[in-house]
This record gives sequence, structure tokens and C-alpha cells, in this order.
Amino acid sequence: MAAPSTTSSTRERLVEAARELFWLEGFEATSVAEVLEKADANAGSLYHFFGGKEELLLAVLDSYKEMLFRMVIEPAIRDVRDPIQRVFAILEGYRRGLTYTAFTGGCPIGNLALELADHDPEARRRIAENFQGWCGWIQKCLEEAGPRLPSQVDRAALAQFVLAVMEGAVMQARVHGSIAPFDASVAHLWDYFNRLQAEAASAKG
Amino acid sequence: MAAPSTTSSTRERLVEAARELFWLEGFEATSVAEVLEKADANAGSLYHFFGGKEELLLAVLDSYKEMLFRMVIEPAIRDVRDPIQRVFAILEGYRRGLTYTAFTGGCPIGNLALELADHDPEARRRIAENFQGWCGWIQKCLEEAGPRLPSQVDRAALAQFVLAVMEGAVMQARVHGSIAPFDASVAHLWDYFNRLQAEAASAKG
Repeated sequence: MAAPSTTSSTRERLVEAARELFWLEGFEATSVAEVLEKADANAGSLYHFFGGKEELLLAVLDSYKEMLFRMVIEPAIRDVRDPIQRVFAILEGYRRGLTYTAFTGGCPIGNLALELADHDPEARRRIAENFQGWCGWIQKCLEEAGPRLPSQVDRAALAQFVLAVMEGAVMQARVHGSIAPFDASVAHLWDYFNRLQAEAASAKG
Repeated sequence: MAAPSTTSSTRERLVEAARELFWLEGFEATSVAEVLEKADANAGSLYHFFGGKEELLLAVLDSYKEMLFRMVIEPAIRDVRDPIQRVFAILEGYRRGLTYTAFTGGCPIGNLALELADHDPEARRRIAENFQGWCGWIQKCLEEAGPRLPSQVDRAALAQFVLAVMEGAVMQARVHGSIAPFDASVAHLWDYFNRLQAEAASAKG
């Protein structure tokens, strides 16, 4: 197996450094100089790979899409077989992230969504693709739940509802510096799912 | 009645200009020069009233708290008597805002929450107070619904769930440039409320 070439690893270091800084500091608050310092790279190599900070952002958003399964979905669901439990295991991953980081950071895509949606159509499109990817995994779980959810429930719409709850719950946990609003939101989502399952069970029985 | 003094109206113009720019551009992306230009004020008057952009932000956040009832709650609920319908009328206000602004802007408090929660404890505290104010109004509606919701439902926690759905739904509408994910999320929240009301009705009957 060949070692990664220096050029590709410099590019990767730039994307990784930008990913972390955009996540923790925000896109606008991060300077190119900070990215270069963190990546241990010089301006020449950044402009060799990217037209500038905006293009680096697009690469960061592409990297999130590529990492979604490996970094978010797979670690959450690998020990959970039940498809509905899997939905909540994915939410539990965000809970773990919040408590691990003392309520900083949050969801990197949500942060960039609110910072950039109005100003950068290319970034917005990639943020939308990240949301679609995430919702796609939730929808897959909901489809695997089959008759355990009422047949009339639109699985794609329900997945967007789950994403709304996650993003709004993460936001409140960060603002309050407390996991309580996250837990309150997820508990009500569980309650809703229990009611959906009860209806499906009674329709079958 | 005395006319507003010049000094107080300069201060108000600065807060108003900053409020709009922080909302539409973000805090970090807004320069002091832009605020001054929009407010038709000079640097001297800004530094007369505020220590700098950070203090101006705190004044903006205080102004949102003061405006909540008049600008968000009252226009939404004034023609709606039913307390549960009032919750959804408040959400409908955000829907109207999103479609009116072609999915830009969104919730100003949510935007500042994700941009600033990690970096500015004073701003974070005021953002939390804004969320508490908003949830307080939702909770009041839920309490007024009385026996129409199951007695074991924690009204304060349910209000945080409603806020989570609103913030996550607004975020997705902005990213997708479409009201569909907002409507999908609110439809599921309605479905949840209908199920809660059905349970309360059957427990009574």
C-alpha cells in the first residue's frame, strides 16, 4: 500500500484544520492565517489547492458528506439492531458530543447552515446535501420499522421532523449550557414515536 | 408629551441598525463601520453609548427581549382564542417571515445562538433569556389548555420541544430555500398535539 503523497496530505491537513476551526469558531471568525497555522501549511499550498477560504469551505462541506456514515451513523448504530432505537441512538451520539465538549461545538452543519445560508449559494447547496444525507439515514431506519409505524406516516417528512428536533435541541443545550433542554426535546420525540407505534400496533391487532 | 431626546434616538438608531445587520449578516460579518453608516451615526456616538460591538450586541439582545411580546407573540395570537391554536399561530408567524423574506434571515436569536454561544458568556446569557421568554409564552398557552393535554405532560419541557421544532424547521427551510421542511416539521408537531389531546379526551370521557 502506497503512503499518502505529500500533496494529498497537505490538502487533507488544510481541510481538517478548516473543518475544526469553522466548527468551533465559525466560518467568518476564522482567518486564513489560523487555518495555515493549524494545518502547518503555507499560503502557497492553500492557493495551490483552493481558490481561497470559500473554496476551502466547500471542500470541508464535501468532507462532512463523506464522513457522515463513518463518523456519525455507524458508531451510533453498530450495536443497535432495532431500527427505531437506531434513530434515537443517532440522537444519543449528539448528546454524547455535547456533554463531552461541555456544550460547545454542537452540530457543525447546523452552525454553518445559520451562518451561511443567505450568503453563499454553493455552500448552501452542500449544506442541504448534508441534511439530505442525514435525513436519508433516519428515513432508512423509519422504513425498516415497516408496520411498526402507521402506514400513512410519511417517512421522509418524519425524518425532517427528527432533524428539526435534533438541531433545535442541540441549539438550546448550547445556549443554556445544560443537557436538560436536549433531553426534554428527545423525551417528547420518544413519546411521539411511542404513540405512533401504539397506533400501528392497535391497527394490526 | 416630550419628543424623544436626540441622544436617546441616536442610541436607538444604533441598536436598530445593529439588530438588522446582525440578523441578516451575522455578528462577526458585521463591521462597526456598517452599523455607523446604517444608523447615520459617527464612531463617537457609538462609543459614547457602548464600549464597542460586543456591548452593542448585548443591547440588541435586550431589545429582542423587550420586543418579544409586541413583535412576535401579540400579532400572532391576537385573533386566536384557543390556547393550542395560539402555539401554532406563533409558529405560523415564523412561516410568514420565512416566505416573506424568501427564506433568508430566519430566527435572529437562533442565528446568534449558534454563532456566539461558545464565545461570549454575556451574550449567551441574554440569548438564554430570550429563549426562556419565548418558551414562557408557549408554556402559558399549554397551561391554559388545562385538561385538554394529559396531566402528566410537563408543560415547560413541552415548550422547549416546540422551540426545538421551530428552530430546526426554520434552519431547514433556509438551507433548502423551501417551506416544505418547515411544514413537514410543524405537521408532525400538530400530529403529536392531536395525539396528546386524544389521550386527554379519552381519560376524561
